[in-house]
Amino acid sequence: MQNLKEFSEKAKLVRKWCLVSTTEAESGHPTSCLSAADITTVLFDKYFSYDLKDPLNAGNDRFVLSKGHAAPLLYTLFAMAGAFPLEQLKTLRKFDSNLEGHPTPKFIYAEAATGSLGQGLSVGAGLALVAKRENLPYKTYVLCGDGELAEGQIWEAANFSSHYELDNLIAILDINRLGQSQETMFGHHIEKYVSRFQSFGFEVISIDGHDLNEIDQAFEQATKNQNGKPHVIIAKTIKGKGVSFVENKEDWHGKALKKEDLEKALSELGEVNGDLRFHLKEPQKIVRSSESGVNSYSLKYEKGKEIATREVFGKVLSGLSDQIKNIYALDGDVKNSTFSEDFFKTHPGRSIEGYIAEQNMVSVAVGLSRLKKIPFVATFAAFLTRAADQIRMARVSEANIKFVGSHVGVSIGEDGPSQMGLEDIALFGAIPDSIIFQPCDAVSATKLIPHMAAHKGISYMRTLRSKTPVIYNNEEEFSLGGSKLLRKSADDELTIIASGITVFEALKAADELKKENINVRVMDCYCIKPIDKIMLNKCLEETKKKILITVEDHYEHGGLGDFVISAVDGTKAKISKMAVTKISRSGTKDELLNDAGINFSHIIAKVKEQLMKKNAIPEAMMK
Amino acid sequence: MQNLKEFSEKAKLVRKWCLVSTTEAESGHPTSCLSAADITTVLFDKYFSYDLKDPLNAGNDRFVLSKGHAAPLLYTLFAMAGAFPLEQLKTLRKFDSNLEGHPTPKFIYAEAATGSLGQGLSVGAGLALVAKRENLPYKTYVLCGDGELAEGQIWEAANFSSHYELDNLIAILDINRLGQSQETMFGHHIEKYVSRFQSFGFEVISIDGHDLNEIDQAFEQATKNQNGKPHVIIAKTIKGKGVSFVENKEDWHGKALKKEDLEKALSELGEVNGDLRFHLKEPQKIVRSSESGVNSYSLKYEKGKEIATREVFGKVLSGLSDQIKNIYALDGDVKNSTFSEDFFKTHPGRSIEGYIAEQNMVSVAVGLSRLKKIPFVATFAAFLTRAADQIRMARVSEANIKFVGSHVGVSIGEDGPSQMGLEDIALFGAIPDSIIFQPCDAVSATKLIPHMAAHKGISYMRTLRSKTPVIYNNEEEFSLGGSKLLRKSADDELTIIASGITVFEALKAADELKKENINVRVMDCYCIKPIDKIMLNKCLEETKKKILITVEDHYEHGGLGDFVISAVDGTKAKISKMAVTKISRSGTKDELLNDAGINFSHIIAKVKEQLMKKNAIPEAMMK
Repeated sequence: MQNLKEFSEKAKLVRKWCLVSTTEAESGHPTSCLSAADITTVLFDKYFSYDLKDPLNAGNDRFVLSKGHAAPLLYTLFAMAGAFPLEQLKTLRKFDSNLEGHPTPKFIYAEAATGSLGQGLSVGAGLALVAKRENLPYKTYVLCGDGELAEGQIWEAANFSSHYELDNLIAILDINRLGQSQETMFGHHIEKYVSRFQSFGFEVISIDGHDLNEIDQAFEQATKNQNGKPHVIIAKTIKGKGVSFVENKEDWHGKALKKEDLEKALSELGEVNGDLRFHLKEPQKIVRSSESGVNSYSLKYEKGKEIATREVFGKVLSGLSDQIKNIYALDGDVKNSTFSEDFFKTHPGRSIEGYIAEQNMVSVAVGLSRLKKIPFVATFAAFLTRAADQIRMARVSEANIKFVGSHVGVSIGEDGPSQMGLEDIALFGAIPDSIIFQPCDAVSATKLIPHMAAHKGISYMRTLRSKTPVIYNNEEEFSLGGSKLLRKSADDELTIIASGITVFEALKAADELKKENINVRVMDCYCIKPIDKIMLNKCLEETKKKILITVEDHYEHGGLGDFVISAVDGTKAKISKMAVTKISRSGTKDELLNDAGINFSHIIAKVKEQLMKKNAIPEAMMK
Repeated sequence: MQNLKEFSEKAKLVRKWCLVSTTEAESGHPTSCLSAADITTVLFDKYFSYDLKDPLNAGNDRFVLSKGHAAPLLYTLFAMAGAFPLEQLKTLRKFDSNLEGHPTPKFIYAEAATGSLGQGLSVGAGLALVAKRENLPYKTYVLCGDGELAEGQIWEAANFSSHYELDNLIAILDINRLGQSQETMFGHHIEKYVSRFQSFGFEVISIDGHDLNEIDQAFEQATKNQNGKPHVIIAKTIKGKGVSFVENKEDWHGKALKKEDLEKALSELGEVNGDLRFHLKEPQKIVRSSESGVNSYSLKYEKGKEIATREVFGKVLSGLSDQIKNIYALDGDVKNSTFSEDFFKTHPGRSIEGYIAEQNMVSVAVGLSRLKKIPFVATFAAFLTRAADQIRMARVSEANIKFVGSHVGVSIGEDGPSQMGLEDIALFGAIPDSIIFQPCDAVSATKLIPHMAAHKGISYMRTLRSKTPVIYNNEEEFSLGGSKLLRKSADDELTIIASGITVFEALKAADELKKENINVRVMDCYCIKPIDKIMLNKCLEETKKKILITVEDHYEHGGLGDFVISAVDGTKAKISKMAVTKISRSGTKDELLNDAGINFSHIIAKVKEQLMKKNAIPEAMMK
């Protein structure tokens, strides 16, 4: 039991620095750190294998701080492990520091950005799954708070972890009873957590989270036992443990101690040897090849043949992944609709069926990305909104994830509005540095998917439910930030900018107008973000009127039209946005495109209206 | 047992019409209807109390179809109850029909739009909670599929229902084993569902979902027993039950029978008496007063005093709700940050602590709205993104919900990017007919909250973490679609358009510029959607340069700037968007506003740049 005394002293030092750093910052969550100080001290000092010089060593254990507000604890643990001087903890929450209020990738030991609660177990499941699939020896530890166990995503992750038999995953629950504004739903009724996790297929170890011996035995058991079940150590703890006047008290969430209270607190902790440090275990050194970049891939199509871009996605992803060995695919039980099933059939070892649990699926992908996999996450575009917060946090995590949303727009037809992706461009467009593609045919889809794979960061592709004819030659090239002019003459009045399904409506409109001797340009904006500003401006220069008509199967705000308007701002262009402005309904594709006012006939009317309005009725219409 | 024979015959008729209607539509999910035909037949024919002439009668039982793809079943049940002729079912999924592919409010008996899975139990919990709070006698039934039980929101709803002791809620699980693309995670392992729901505090009744006697007894038990626990009837069923060649078969999800297969199926069902109808029980007639509209409410502030708009929200909501008796408030364990705690203290009977489970909270609000409550849903703006899909579906449901997102933008400071609401305008802006407010001071916040309460539909208010000085007189009026000019002269060069925290940066910039004899207008765009187009155009007319500079604490795409650009399109205005374009970090409010390039000094630089660029250096700068 010599160890226990040492743990106890080290835990004191951890507590000290969680208190000192937050008081120095004048904000933060010290009490949420103190409750978990004992259990994490034992973990780091005795069980955790990690090479501080190589965070991405594939032999390293993984520690995910799901309760991100306990960031000072995370930083203290790594400082105590020798990653940097303890004094540096005093930079917590300062502008120039990497020690942010909640963990972000600026702190290189953070497996993911956390702070939006309930996501860490999914990230951990992603990390643990990679170890299972690739026979890697590391363990993944996830520290969760009790408040965040109310998030449904936790239970998505729990099902996922037991279904995939992630017995290398060890969840640690810091049950400190108190949420932010009141007691949690279950307070200290530990049995409520025990029964829930047992029923979800976990090996449950319930302990006093401040009894160092019980903690030690719990880790001993959880790290040895490999019976196919994920582990959860449910630790009954005291929020603010170690400082009597904040212990187990309401109204102390997210509050730093004032200077005078800090002195009192430190004197309660008693003398602490400031030189104590953790003994990290040395991990196996395992080097994993990093991703390869392929940005061309060939499949040939017959012009005019009808193929849905979602079908193309499946085929291309499957083929491309023969070359790019670190592509994974995840799907939410719609793989026969998104066509990721083609990949699932050819690459079962890199396929992850996420079932109907989109939030977990996205955060699992964050875990995969951390280990340099390239996850393609596919479901209906409408259901990617289910994971909007996880996508937001994936960006904060600097994750490299490729999203594919099928069944976009009213053009899906009979299934009705609940199934229509109509706000997805707004969602992905708001994310800094994201890219958005929407190919209209098989050739462009085929050429753009390798660009997604090669891009680092958040990329998104909209795919169509309905079949569309192949309009491009197989030799045509497509680029990030590019576009294509599909109709063009020396005598164009204005430009119609379309993307995806509306390309065909625009083409039909242009061809009808031509019969009336009204020439218009049609631009296929297959890359929505970044948009092809050069081409837009070229069109404005080359057409008679400085008029752009954007037409999109997406809601009016935040879509293609807004990207176009921003791109040509200041050029005196007149832009007409044609988009969906109401809740759609069931009907055929053509009925709904017409009902939404974005089909060829509405485009024709809009073109004529625009030309009339300018007192510039084309000759053809004067006859 | 006379009943059972009758049930059996009626269930046959239900099956027939689910098959006929989908074949007629040539799409839909007949097999998902057939698995639940028996259990819903017994429910409607013997237990369900409902006045078809008055769907909003407060004595009516409630039936929520969480598995929205079984819409044909829902329609058939109400047709069998006498709501409309069975023949009308043949209009399923047609453009002019109210019988859409998934239920929407066009079908007046649908309690909510469903089709995005896993949301119905939360809606039902909202309905059941109202009955508990207001002593109403009805029961709420929710039919869930097994695939959707993978959604975390189900478990949020389960915790919520048992915590609030909703023993008037009866969940029915149609465990038909098969998802869309493969077997569900648990297939027919009924015990997995039993243990999960037991551990979540439900009274569990497990039955054969095709044994009419067991079904009858289950409802008997669930409707009688009131021990504080919500009920779940877990029914083991066969997907496609009743039609041998689709029963329990993969690849039959979401596929209508072809005409020839339909004939075969109907002959298997055997002779069916087409005149059979359900006997609905007559509900108690209970009239509830509908909402009152108050759109003014008074609280006085001292000019210059510093108050955060989030604090104002709490006070005003609390005061206003003394007058408007159907306001409810929901919060996700941050009520001491959003300040909805003021309402919680004064109106505990209409307060709902949702804990950290935003998805459930929003769908519970959909249930409240259905019963003509006015729910105010508050949490950090960043965490409203957690419920983006539920907000989307709330709009499809035509729900009347008021969202309040606190802690917007980088101006929150030290907590870092995970806590910053920076895509919320894009999210709420995309939703058709939504309104968005962002008051910058206490007076405007006070005046706008009653407008939110009076508005019907989805409305959203951004509130600020930091205190801001009162700048308006208490007499000032604020309107939907309005704005205020805070700086104005006869000699203005251009207009700065700000909202929320950036109003103060713009004012500071304007005052600094004035010292250099550069006059600029400052517009407080407290209503972001609909935006004040008239004022924007007036400013363009009245300033020397047709220049607008928008400055917002939100990401660049989908925010205030895009609303402004769209509003003035075609006017030859030049718009400069100043917005957040990268992931922020921890720091002080002022450091982060500066880092994001949206503080007063960047505004000053932008104004000067714009004026220079136009070769229109103001005299003051020529000296």
